[in-house]
Amino acid sequence: MSGLPRRRYAILAEGRLHEAKTAHGVLRYGKDEVVAVLDSTLAGESVAGAMPDLLPDPGRDAPIVATLQEALAHGPTSVLVGVAPAGGRLPGEWMETLREASEAGLEIVGGLHQRLGPEFPGAKVWDVREPPSEVPIFSGEGFAVGPKVALTVGTDAAIGKMTATLELERTARAAGITTAFVPTGQTGVIVAGWGVCVDAVVSDFVAGVSEMLVLQAAKSSPDLILVEGQGSLAHPAYSGVTLGLLHGSCPDCLILCVSPDDTPGYAGVPRPSPARAARLYEEVAALVKPAPVVAVSANTRGLTNGEAQAFVGKIAYETGLPTADPFRDSADPILEAVLGS
Amino acid sequence: MSGLPRRRYAILAEGRLHEAKTAHGVLRYGKDEVVAVLDSTLAGESVAGAMPDLLPDPGRDAPIVATLQEALAHGPTSVLVGVAPAGGRLPGEWMETLREASEAGLEIVGGLHQRLGPEFPGAKVWDVREPPSEVPIFSGEGFAVGPKVALTVGTDAAIGKMTATLELERTARAAGITTAFVPTGQTGVIVAGWGVCVDAVVSDFVAGVSEMLVLQAAKSSPDLILVEGQGSLAHPAYSGVTLGLLHGSCPDCLILCVSPDDTPGYAGVPRPSPARAARLYEEVAALVKPAPVVAVSANTRGLTNGEAQAFVGKIAYETGLPTADPFRDSADPILEAVLGS
Repeated sequence: MSGLPRRRYAILAEGRLHEAKTAHGVLRYGKDEVVAVLDSTLAGESVAGAMPDLLPDPGRDAPIVATLQEALAHGPTSVLVGVAPAGGRLPGEWMETLREASEAGLEIVGGLHQRLGPEFPGAKVWDVREPPSEVPIFSGEGFAVGPKVALTVGTDAAIGKMTATLELERTARAAGITTAFVPTGQTGVIVAGWGVCVDAVVSDFVAGVSEMLVLQAAKSSPDLILVEGQGSLAHPAYSGVTLGLLHGSCPDCLILCVSPDDTPGYAGVPRPSPARAARLYEEVAALVKPAPVVAVSANTRGLTNGEAQAFVGKIAYETGLPTADPFRDSADPILEAVLGS
Repeated sequence: MSGLPRRRYAILAEGRLHEAKTAHGVLRYGKDEVVAVLDSTLAGESVAGAMPDLLPDPGRDAPIVATLQEALAHGPTSVLVGVAPAGGRLPGEWMETLREASEAGLEIVGGLHQRLGPEFPGAKVWDVREPPSEVPIFSGEGFAVGPKVALTVGTDAAIGKMTATLELERTARAAGITTAFVPTGQTGVIVAGWGVCVDAVVSDFVAGVSEMLVLQAAKSSPDLILVEGQGSLAHPAYSGVTLGLLHGSCPDCLILCVSPDDTPGYAGVPRPSPARAARLYEEVAALVKPAPVVAVSANTRGLTNGEAQAFVGKIAYETGLPTADPFRDSADPILEAVLGS
């Protein structure tokens, strides 16, 4: 969304930049600038040096520094908690760094379950997971949205739906297609600077909030609206979030995200095959509004190039759909399928 | 659940007893006693006289009175808001009556979106829609529940799932089968004196809360656990709640609730046919745990006996499943199907 004030982030990733998914998302895709990353174990390097595959554009590089004082020299407006702590709550030394940052006039930004607002009374805090105080019930207004709406769905949670959506957006923009990315999870919201974590919304309102986000995205009349999916229809803990988003966002088409992982999933529940998942997503979507699965986004991270190629070919064969890994290769085949649907 | 303190209700239904669904539920099915109903337009009558079809058991009858003072003479412990107000908020004179009841030592019980606790500081208030402060994520423990678990699902919201579930419970108990009813909506919770309104829970936790309720119900080792369904897989606003409950409660079998209404549903979305709904519920349930639809509960309210019989026959033919209206006729065919599955 345009017109929002731009942030300049210092990202807190002490000792864990390599696994800091929120940090990676903001560094690679963020609308806002990253002026410094705090990780004393990598201090002196730059992000592009430490993680050669992360940044598609050298202009997005940022220095890695050891202390908040060094970060402040780069003029940040905001300090972002870039790593989810193992125990769920931030360690004491991180809280101390956030306090110092706040005293230096910085906004604190966190996407954790742990809300930071109450921990820093008087400070400027953006708790990304905190839903809006007023949330609507689904109205049906989303049925009349003008631009084409595509939603990513998955055979599992945490399978790369946000990455697929953002890579598709990058590819579309590069092709001169105006797009609006609709963020529905914490990293997506920080990347885009707006949105709602739909899984933090009271369940009666998930569809209504999803519809509201698409209506907001439609205001700028983009060529294409790309909605970040959540969870999976087959995930026993989060399927309700997935379906609220699927029905509420009123998509015209779906992109199925898959991975080669065929071990038992959450709570021992098997992941559905891509073909079965595609069929079920279509059938369940059609209860409210038809939305064909037009392409498959394959997350081949950890595979060799040969293995990845074989996996992509296998999924394309099994589903009969254009299939690509938009991160390793290109999102072009997926974009083409979305535009042609 | 046993061991909970029993309430003695005075029900507030001024001018609207005939449409007071929460009041009807508590009068017909409630574990707690109703000692008086406030509706000055029917004062002097009894509930059984005013609504001949409502009470299956003459022992559940209650006097209708005109004032709170008269109701207090019957020794209530609690005053229940028995009608949902049109505008969403209770009118001033009702608030005044609740204040007087509270001053007389009564607990205030409300199942509305409007929370009453903050309106009556210091009073004893049970806001039925207020979720527990600590809610769990789904764990998979529900897969190992011993007793058979049956869940009601529907082709639409507000189609009689609670009534079907409670009629099935009455029938099972009469047949000497120990049952636990799992309440998931406001009237069900008031009827049973425990439970959670799952649609008021943050969406990440709907499956976990549903699982928790079934685990609680299983503690008394009943022969059968009957879970009150919510919403519909085809309802664009509430399908997420429905799916969270469907996966989280880990049912062994489903009872599909249908009505003859084939006009467009919420936001113009068509209601699915019973056969299509049954197939989809089964397919979506099977992503996590198989649960066949074993019977159909037909809500034939408003039809003549002949029309009702024809509708029940048509649905049985279309679905190939035992079908009955448990309210008009008997829940026996449904109970038999559940036990035989």
